[in-house]
Amino acid sequence: MVTNFADRLNDAIRMKGNPCVVGLDPRLDQIPTFVTRASGVSNKVRSAITDFNRIVIETAAPLVPAVKLQVAFYEQYGLEGLQAFVDTIQVAKAKGLIVIADAKRNDIASTAEAYAGAFLGKVNVFGSLKSAFDVDCMTVSPFLGRDSIEPFVAACERYGKGVFILVKTSNVGSGDLQDQKLATTGERLYERVARVVEELGQSLVGDSGYSSVGAVVGATFPEQAKFIRTLLQHAIILVPGYGAQGGTARDVIDCFKTDGFGAVVNASRSITFAHKSVDISEQGFIEAVHSALCNMIEEITLSLRNKISGGP
Amino acid sequence: MVTNFADRLNDAIRMKGNPCVVGLDPRLDQIPTFVTRASGVSNKVRSAITDFNRIVIETAAPLVPAVKLQVAFYEQYGLEGLQAFVDTIQVAKAKGLIVIADAKRNDIASTAEAYAGAFLGKVNVFGSLKSAFDVDCMTVSPFLGRDSIEPFVAACERYGKGVFILVKTSNVGSGDLQDQKLATTGERLYERVARVVEELGQSLVGDSGYSSVGAVVGATFPEQAKFIRTLLQHAIILVPGYGAQGGTARDVIDCFKTDGFGAVVNASRSITFAHKSVDISEQGFIEAVHSALCNMIEEITLSLRNKISGGP
Repeated sequence: MVTNFADRLNDAIRMKGNPCVVGLDPRLDQIPTFVTRASGVSNKVRSAITDFNRIVIETAAPLVPAVKLQVAFYEQYGLEGLQAFVDTIQVAKAKGLIVIADAKRNDIASTAEAYAGAFLGKVNVFGSLKSAFDVDCMTVSPFLGRDSIEPFVAACERYGKGVFILVKTSNVGSGDLQDQKLATTGERLYERVARVVEELGQSLVGDSGYSSVGAVVGATFPEQAKFIRTLLQHAIILVPGYGAQGGTARDVIDCFKTDGFGAVVNASRSITFAHKSVDISEQGFIEAVHSALCNMIEEITLSLRNKISGGP
Repeated sequence: MVTNFADRLNDAIRMKGNPCVVGLDPRLDQIPTFVTRASGVSNKVRSAITDFNRIVIETAAPLVPAVKLQVAFYEQYGLEGLQAFVDTIQVAKAKGLIVIADAKRNDIASTAEAYAGAFLGKVNVFGSLKSAFDVDCMTVSPFLGRDSIEPFVAACERYGKGVFILVKTSNVGSGDLQDQKLATTGERLYERVARVVEELGQSLVGDSGYSSVGAVVGATFPEQAKFIRTLLQHAIILVPGYGAQGGTARDVIDCFKTDGFGAVVNASRSITFAHKSVDISEQGFIEAVHSALCNMIEEITLSLRNKISGGP
């Protein structure tokens, strides 16, 4: 019997006392020189990224329930970057963190099954079942429709994992398709997707009342987020766009339900690249990450307390 | 001065005399035992996939202009699978084939830039520009809107590469979002995307009259394909869904323009897994691939000749 992902995530949020997620999106040119100088020569990219992430993870692990790895920032460095992706997942899991792969994968069902196997499940390798990346949950794009999402949901059920389906993304251009009003029902496209998320998640609602099928809703569109929250009775919302992208604690608050749960808020650049210069010392870097993260946690938990108590 | 991707692709089609693409989507349990038995023990997955693909590539290279690698089928085997992905790209390029990465990536602009760097461009690695995968073109999902596609188009311009943007996919559920009629204009969502493809491609039209910004339109929806073709004056259409997914030569023919160009047709399983049993001999396997591919080429070129000559 696998443990429901939503329950695991909510337990972690309860334990840490906040729903903040640190995004690990490495950019080599912003990694402090004390890391890159120390990294080995033969696998310099891999060790620079992994060592950098390890420091962030060790700083963040006592404070937050989860980390989010944006896969693009590892893929851009090829095989070495992907080795660092695998290393980082191991480091984060060893520290008890929930690991979110921000992959936005989507394809026809037979291919979606391969992606679900890669990130969430196990794959038959010459007769034995092996995991490729084995994260706790991943983001999925809905563009190909319901039959392209179902293999991910099936993997969630089988392996106790989660998915966050893109509903309304944080970028300026997200409205180009997602905000389109549909002629048949008058819904916006994101509304249609939100309803699909809720339907697909019905069978994966855990003891916490939340489902392992969640939604991505950007912090940069608080009005839409408020409306989408009303459509999602059981979905947990992954909120990107906080910090560097301009979303504030006030902007994200309507993604939560009145029980103070129902959302996790990610910040990447504003935490891991809070240091002003790559010449910062190790101690200075740790303090910069710690301080930026504590500020975020304070802002979010303060907003949440006001929400639960009915404050402004 | 980089060579325009559409011109390169059209030259390759002209040289080979057909627009067929072989999909390399490895499934270990369908790879003949003569390959898996011969593969080394330490990197068994990597060598099994690469050796299998090498035989397919050597068989197909004299016949077709391009191969398409579905990234999911490599990711599912983790780092070893991705090493095989990199190996296969090298083998195919060495044989003069155009390499399409079917990745369906899409993200906010800063992340899309990283994906474009990974597949099409170069990335700054400690002061030197390096390529991660360096394919000729890739597929991109449009769900996040125009600003999420532009970084890929910029990479095409800079590096002489191409993109195929999902317009109408081959799966049954593609209609869930893509077929939605929009309240404002009465367009279907795929029509809206097709117009964006055409607009984004304006600056990348080559001497052949085609653009390096192409579209993906499934062979399984010939009526929609016919209409989409009328919207796309310059885009080359990548047509999946031929063969195993049920698309026929008649179904794909309306994706072409009357000059006989403007589309490439992919078949994966029906070519590479044409052999009935994994116990087939090497010679038998090569013959199965060759025969399935020649049949496909004959069907497509016959349909094309009829179209150009105005036949039925």
